[in-house]
Amino acid sequence: MTAKVLQIIRRAKLPLSKAELAEETGVSLSAISVHVERLLEEKLIEVSKIGVSSGGRKPRQYALNKNIGLILSIELGTSFVHIALTNFNCEILYLTTSDIDITDGPDRVLTRIHELVDQMLLENKVDKVSIKGIGIGIPGPVDFSMGIPISPTIMPGWDKYPIREFWSKYFDCPCYVDNDVNTMALGEHAKGLQFEVSNLIYVKVGSGIGSGIIYDGVLYRGSTGSAGDIGHFDIGSDVVCWCGNKGCLEASAGGKAIVSKGKERALSHRSEYLLQILNSRGKLTIDDIGTGVLQLDSTSVALVRESGTSIGRVIASIVNFANPDLVVIGGRVAEFGDIFLAAIRQSVYQRSLPLATRNLIINKSVLGNMAGLIGGAFMTIDQIIIQSTDNEADIILK
Amino acid sequence: MTAKVLQIIRRAKLPLSKAELAEETGVSLSAISVHVERLLEEKLIEVSKIGVSSGGRKPRQYALNKNIGLILSIELGTSFVHIALTNFNCEILYLTTSDIDITDGPDRVLTRIHELVDQMLLENKVDKVSIKGIGIGIPGPVDFSMGIPISPTIMPGWDKYPIREFWSKYFDCPCYVDNDVNTMALGEHAKGLQFEVSNLIYVKVGSGIGSGIIYDGVLYRGSTGSAGDIGHFDIGSDVVCWCGNKGCLEASAGGKAIVSKGKERALSHRSEYLLQILNSRGKLTIDDIGTGVLQLDSTSVALVRESGTSIGRVIASIVNFANPDLVVIGGRVAEFGDIFLAAIRQSVYQRSLPLATRNLIINKSVLGNMAGLIGGAFMTIDQIIIQSTDNEADIILK
Repeated sequence: MTAKVLQIIRRAKLPLSKAELAEETGVSLSAISVHVERLLEEKLIEVSKIGVSSGGRKPRQYALNKNIGLILSIELGTSFVHIALTNFNCEILYLTTSDIDITDGPDRVLTRIHELVDQMLLENKVDKVSIKGIGIGIPGPVDFSMGIPISPTIMPGWDKYPIREFWSKYFDCPCYVDNDVNTMALGEHAKGLQFEVSNLIYVKVGSGIGSGIIYDGVLYRGSTGSAGDIGHFDIGSDVVCWCGNKGCLEASAGGKAIVSKGKERALSHRSEYLLQILNSRGKLTIDDIGTGVLQLDSTSVALVRESGTSIGRVIASIVNFANPDLVVIGGRVAEFGDIFLAAIRQSVYQRSLPLATRNLIINKSVLGNMAGLIGGAFMTIDQIIIQSTDNEADIILK
Repeated sequence: MTAKVLQIIRRAKLPLSKAELAEETGVSLSAISVHVERLLEEKLIEVSKIGVSSGGRKPRQYALNKNIGLILSIELGTSFVHIALTNFNCEILYLTTSDIDITDGPDRVLTRIHELVDQMLLENKVDKVSIKGIGIGIPGPVDFSMGIPISPTIMPGWDKYPIREFWSKYFDCPCYVDNDVNTMALGEHAKGLQFEVSNLIYVKVGSGIGSGIIYDGVLYRGSTGSAGDIGHFDIGSDVVCWCGNKGCLEASAGGKAIVSKGKERALSHRSEYLLQILNSRGKLTIDDIGTGVLQLDSTSVALVRESGTSIGRVIASIVNFANPDLVVIGGRVAEFGDIFLAAIRQSVYQRSLPLATRNLIINKSVLGNMAGLIGGAFMTIDQIIIQSTDNEADIILK
């Protein structure tokens, strides 16, 4: 119950009094006092200074002590890594980014990341001991309880690799591994939207396409932790996907598919703009398409719009099924301007049922490309608190 | 908290001791005693007789008093109504069924149902006062908090009709209205499966196609109560749906679509079996197709298999997205034999991702066509208990 009280304080928009905590938990005021005193003693919460100056008989209110320690949050992409140190309110204090190639395999990639972390700690004079937890988001399916990737197609060599154990060699704190879209959904919900929404689907459109699901304010992982996979929804096309099936969304509308279509159209002289890039650099990237949209290259615009339309058709189905308050569009392609979002919205409003779209909002991510790092920190703190509920007698943070 | 204790006792497979209740709720043993005593006093629970004969020091255990009152559970179809009286353990004590035509509109249909209820009470010598709640499942979208249908396409005249108020004229107890597939999912989960599964999708294949969602052991309704709508998933076909879009699942694979295809094939002499029925009776029904399957009429078999394949493709997407433990197939078409289930399974295992199907089970409903009535009773008791949490001082049942 101490951990539950901490969770409530942590998720509250304003500091809470003991009476408010008693009401929220349904336990007596005297029981709440015991938990609050313990949390104060462990410095996990503090007496809020807000409103004290107004004087009078106002009861004491409690808020999270965000400076109790640091969280190391790592977001791994196929070609980059973001590394952040955050406080316990998930605010990013230090940030570093580097190119990596995920196909180099776990040993080389994680060793490189560890070097970057070491350097970051040194440069900012941060003591290792102040790090209380490590959270890592990876671009593939994860067995969350074990902290291992499960057959991640775009991460060759990473299947079942014990990421958690790698970090335990260097840090004396827990490490949690999650799918990157789950951490993005968590970050957006907790910090981008301050928990104001109950049911949210976060759709990431990067090389591939995935989603993270918040139901009734809580991340939903599904039975084996793979919930949110929308990349292989059947859109009825003839395109063959890497998974072996035909018609998968990702094979037609993901970043990789956009680039490959762009190359095709460039070579058939339908975009002199893209052909020029292709000829001068020998390859096209998704960012070239993004620049093409800004330059109003009609082929780039058409590619992004086509992708949005297909994704919108799938989101329409999801909206019918999950009836969320909010669909958040994130990932690299979401940053290519309003054309993409408009195409998605148009598809959804055309295909979803009126009752499901009555209050529906479809928006770009508030946190942008920081959602994953912030959410990774949030997830890690969540787990630290949840783990400690299993053993109430233990101190929550060593 | 009293209501919470009651919910835990009600959902437990075996009677519980105070110590077990304290552990489950996280409140002290003395606090639990207060709640248990109150529930005993109100006769909502009773001391269990199980295990008493084994003697010794075994602590007292508590179970739901299933005979505290009756629930009137009504399931409305497009052409039938099922009416049941259940006890507080959702066991059906009395059952009656009648043909109705839902297009007669709410006044005529509900008046007819009220007559049937009156007759049922009279015949079984049941006193109205013993009915503590009324639960109604209807084949359309429902604003659950208001208890009104919202633009239910197959229920002309019912839009926003105050069903709850209709019953309040005759009964002095609360009435709750829900979508029929939601009540089926609840019934299957609570009583068919004894809560053994956390994440369940109940797919009903009747005239139309819909689903009910249980996440983490709780019915998920979505933001506006329309969650679970899979009838308008885009399967990429050219068939125009009544909703105005092309390619909706329901337009190709629902019972109505099966019948209309059956008629077409009969008239083009591809099934002498169906043509004979069509000629002799002037029309075909979904049950004729069902009989055709039993008689091994190859066209009927093909129709049911085609439907299963299409539905399976959509369920594959849902399995990827929601990653459930179990998909339950219910509704009239599910009763047409194993061909239908086999076609669904084949589609799902072909198209869903390995991690999502690792532990997945796809089965026919355990409760069959009683799922809705049993679930309607379960939902009603749930609501009675939840409503009473809002006002702890009140006695839960008047």
